[in-house]
Amino acid sequence: MLKQYLLTPGPVPVPPQVALKEALPIVHHRTDEFVSIYKDISEGLKYVFQTKNEVYTLACSGTGTMEMAIVNLLSPNDEIVVASCGNFGERWIEIAQSYGIKVVSVSVEWGEVVSPLQIEKTLKENPNIKAVFTTFVETSTGVVNDIKSIGKIVANTNAVFVVDAISGIVGQEFKTDLWKVDVAVSASQKGFMLPPGLAFITFSQKAKEMVKMSKLPKFYFDIKKYKKFYLKNQTPFTPPVTLIVALQEAIKLIKAKKLESFWSDCKLFSKATRKGMQALELKLFAKVPCEVVTAAVVPKDLGEKIVEILRKKYGVFIAGGQGKLKGQIIRFAHMGYISKADLLAGFACLEMALSELDTKNIEKGKAVAAVQEELYRD
Amino acid sequence: MLKQYLLTPGPVPVPPQVALKEALPIVHHRTDEFVSIYKDISEGLKYVFQTKNEVYTLACSGTGTMEMAIVNLLSPNDEIVVASCGNFGERWIEIAQSYGIKVVSVSVEWGEVVSPLQIEKTLKENPNIKAVFTTFVETSTGVVNDIKSIGKIVANTNAVFVVDAISGIVGQEFKTDLWKVDVAVSASQKGFMLPPGLAFITFSQKAKEMVKMSKLPKFYFDIKKYKKFYLKNQTPFTPPVTLIVALQEAIKLIKAKKLESFWSDCKLFSKATRKGMQALELKLFAKVPCEVVTAAVVPKDLGEKIVEILRKKYGVFIAGGQGKLKGQIIRFAHMGYISKADLLAGFACLEMALSELDTKNIEKGKAVAAVQEELYRD
Repeated sequence: MLKQYLLTPGPVPVPPQVALKEALPIVHHRTDEFVSIYKDISEGLKYVFQTKNEVYTLACSGTGTMEMAIVNLLSPNDEIVVASCGNFGERWIEIAQSYGIKVVSVSVEWGEVVSPLQIEKTLKENPNIKAVFTTFVETSTGVVNDIKSIGKIVANTNAVFVVDAISGIVGQEFKTDLWKVDVAVSASQKGFMLPPGLAFITFSQKAKEMVKMSKLPKFYFDIKKYKKFYLKNQTPFTPPVTLIVALQEAIKLIKAKKLESFWSDCKLFSKATRKGMQALELKLFAKVPCEVVTAAVVPKDLGEKIVEILRKKYGVFIAGGQGKLKGQIIRFAHMGYISKADLLAGFACLEMALSELDTKNIEKGKAVAAVQEELYRD
Repeated sequence: MLKQYLLTPGPVPVPPQVALKEALPIVHHRTDEFVSIYKDISEGLKYVFQTKNEVYTLACSGTGTMEMAIVNLLSPNDEIVVASCGNFGERWIEIAQSYGIKVVSVSVEWGEVVSPLQIEKTLKENPNIKAVFTTFVETSTGVVNDIKSIGKIVANTNAVFVVDAISGIVGQEFKTDLWKVDVAVSASQKGFMLPPGLAFITFSQKAKEMVKMSKLPKFYFDIKKYKKFYLKNQTPFTPPVTLIVALQEAIKLIKAKKLESFWSDCKLFSKATRKGMQALELKLFAKVPCEVVTAAVVPKDLGEKIVEILRKKYGVFIAGGQGKLKGQIIRFAHMGYISKADLLAGFACLEMALSELDTKNIEKGKAVAAVQEELYRD
């Protein structure tokens, strides 16, 4: 009966009014009722993505729409640039290589952000590059990349610009069209405040032209199939209707509160979280921290232990480090349906866990006070 | 406020105790709690599929796991046999051709069942065939194929036997191992009594050997990734946790009632439905009718109209014809969480709709009486 607090960078807590929609009777997907729901979410997704182009909804994880971007844009032996700065950036490389795509890597150390200048230089040196792939918010390290600057650079070339915006979207400012992002992908279990199971993708006109030339094999992820059914507000394959009905409710909440208000909340929460970490004398890991998750370096490889104590003893779920960062960092999320009180509870328990591990002289209440001060400044 | 009765061959109604599980707080997928749920569903899926091999759970529609079978078994230019008898059988051909696979088609007219003898002959004539693909229950026409006989034939060759068991499984007897099915795929929104959004796949030892040789490109559907995580009771990509928690509950119900009992229910329901259609003087479409959905020929292309009246006026959702059968048949499902009273209500409303269309002299109550007599014989 330990009550749980989910402060992980996906999945995130789902508002009860959204979660309950999943329990409603099934809507059949070939009916007027579904058409009307699909039309509504399609319009809503354009707002969330800040695009005038169609946004397609699929049954898969975010990785599925990442693969969808690759198989619909490219042909065997095409060359692309991947600018990676963490675990999810590397996924672009893995997917591309699975399809025989040549990858020019412009990767940086984990914790750093990718360099727009280096991307510009690489595009000049490799005029055959078909596309540039990067990550908006790299949750494995907690950084946010300068998508706007990279977008300007790629827009001046024949290449298209593809962004993994799985984490970050809704949480912090992201403008697909204005920032000249040609393909943006996302998924339901982050800023959308939904359970996992849905993923999203949108293509610009420039990207659509490239789709026409693509020769990589595909079926389930074939954009042409989704486009055909999108025109009649349906999907080519049976969609996860309960999640889509929940999506409709989540979009209603996002529209009512407005994106700008989500952005300013996350900005405040991230600032407060950084203050809390500093009060605990935990060094921030990200060179340019994003606003949806905060990564902090923990002493003596204690990451896994801290995460475990928080879960088992306090019911507080934060994330540890992924891949080569395992044990070395903790990641504390503050996006979506996470409140100020959740953050304070999280920090109070983090103080207790660190205190139990006795690695530093933890002054109880100090981090909480730092967070309080920042959150309730007005 | 028109109360709805879902009598469609997928999605099907979800029992309330299963649906409500979707509304519970999110379980994080990298926790002991998820591991324990995943272990439970993995064991349960072996029972449902009647296999000793692992059954993998994915976030996608059933088509996704159909593609998964193809991309994990085959290499470019491989030859396969597809035995199709309807809309979903043709999907095997479409997916295979998208990947440059050579298809030897052993298809029959819609309404017929595929011929084990013809498959045997084709395998003898084409010794290079790598795999035979077919459909268990073809919901587009309402037939069931003789998987057991085909399994015996394919087992005597080097080819593997791949079956789309998306519809049918749980609803009527299907035994993966005993019937020598090497790869079986299914999805959540049929016999499992769940919303759409999950799909399942299992591989025999013979199929696993073929996987090692496969050269088709893949990432999201790469079985090796799922296998690696399956060993620790997890999934490689963020799984749809609310649907998986609902799956755990659905499997609990299936185990408690036992597969045999679902099979005998559907057998009785299909017999009663056929009697009802005959009382309405509607000819049955399927040469060998399955036990989860009944297709009947309707007069003068009235299929779409009947479906529409039933939906709009009576809240009863049945399916019309797909593809070339559009308008010509109606399909009345009786699998999963559909009760005897649902069937009776459905038939009473079908009588009303036909009566309104005035195509025949409908004697009200006659079809209902025929269904009653069959359902409550004891």
